[in-house]
Amino acid sequence: MMDDFKKVYCRGCWQQMKVPIFIRTPLSVPFRLMGIRPSRMHPNLCTLCESMFTRVKKNKQIDIQATVMFADLRGYTALSEQVGPDGIARLLNAFYDECAPAIWRRDGIINKMIGDAVLSIFNFPIEQHDHVHQAMMAGIEIQRKCAAVQSELRAAAGLDVPVQIGIGIHTGTAAIGEFGTAYKDFTIIGSVVNKAARLQGAAANGEILITEEAYSHIEHMYPHLEPRTYHLKGMEQPVIAYSVPV
Amino acid sequence: MMDDFKKVYCRGCWQQMKVPIFIRTPLSVPFRLMGIRPSRMHPNLCTLCESMFTRVKKNKQIDIQATVMFADLRGYTALSEQVGPDGIARLLNAFYDECAPAIWRRDGIINKMIGDAVLSIFNFPIEQHDHVHQAMMAGIEIQRKCAAVQSELRAAAGLDVPVQIGIGIHTGTAAIGEFGTAYKDFTIIGSVVNKAARLQGAAANGEILITEEAYSHIEHMYPHLEPRTYHLKGMEQPVIAYSVPV
Repeated sequence: MMDDFKKVYCRGCWQQMKVPIFIRTPLSVPFRLMGIRPSRMHPNLCTLCESMFTRVKKNKQIDIQATVMFADLRGYTALSEQVGPDGIARLLNAFYDECAPAIWRRDGIINKMIGDAVLSIFNFPIEQHDHVHQAMMAGIEIQRKCAAVQSELRAAAGLDVPVQIGIGIHTGTAAIGEFGTAYKDFTIIGSVVNKAARLQGAAANGEILITEEAYSHIEHMYPHLEPRTYHLKGMEQPVIAYSVPV
Repeated sequence: MMDDFKKVYCRGCWQQMKVPIFIRTPLSVPFRLMGIRPSRMHPNLCTLCESMFTRVKKNKQIDIQATVMFADLRGYTALSEQVGPDGIARLLNAFYDECAPAIWRRDGIINKMIGDAVLSIFNFPIEQHDHVHQAMMAGIEIQRKCAAVQSELRAAAGLDVPVQIGIGIHTGTAAIGEFGTAYKDFTIIGSVVNKAARLQGAAANGEILITEEAYSHIEHMYPHLEPRTYHLKGMEQPVIAYSVPV
């Protein structure tokens, strides 16, 4: 399904360092011998992208402009109690397989899956001038697909209640790189990440909430959305957000 | 610091499959050429442990008996707002570096770091007859170390409030393996995971909460602890838990 857009070289290393790292075809053999492989984060990135900070940018973490999108399965804990491990496994498989292509097609990366939630990043390492727009389109695709395959999802998990997703999107400056020295974790941190996560928690079933910072980038597409005020856990200031029509 | 206990072969592959996979010394070269490397989850495991289910056990997921421990940094979102990315990066580095050895020394694995939280698993793939006890000892070490290095932690992050950790432990049957087909995630799911996570959320600062199922394994060490009742989000039934003295 994703084979049409797969590249033979790593787009991240090319854009960030102007170095051609081959990840497919026989050209990739020398790189594989050096331990460089396709990254799980995106089919067109390599594992060097996850550690280039220390090796190339001389810094464990760097500041980037990025858009962060969190999507989660609603009521996961309650569902787990109801349907048992097999049903939940099938539901998670379906959820992951629905989210991944929607994100990858728009050059976002999957930083991690956290049980019922996906943390995705847009504008790094593949640069995008319209990263807020791309994140929003990925969110819309995830919501629409969830609605379209609703009966399959419910059948897979053996559920008699709807399977629903909540999405939160925020944009701004964040720190990305490897954290920890004994256990190294490639991830993104900062207020952008926390606000996107909290907003995802505040989103209603089937809803995509974006912060006012993110909305300013796509306002021309959706003018006249109503601002709403949210009081989010751990945030002193109220957060203004908009619900994007799915 | 951890070098004393590092093995030359993968303990997981040995215990689960009776296959010697070398991960250190020149003996590891042929395995590295096949793409098998030390796993990030534990210094004495290899990457084959993360995917052996499909290849060897003929199943993407298998049911295991395991103990799950969640530990998280309290007030992370609020801290992030206060101290900025650099302080948070130093705090996370310190937190990860404190948790990893405490878990690894007791043969638990770090399944994933989730921003301010660590998800660790005991009894897989390295088998332990006393996995609840090992998880509890790891939790106690994390709490004690956090208290001991408190001033360094606060100085690292530039904080004038205490850095505190909450821990939740539960034991039982869970499904472990690779989820998703496009994006493959090695993780553990089930009620055991959710209950440990929710209990961690309910733990007070500096506290370790364990479920009654877990307590039954270590009651001989800590007799006469007071049972408490918790109503946890997404759980229909109230959960009985015990606070282990740190």
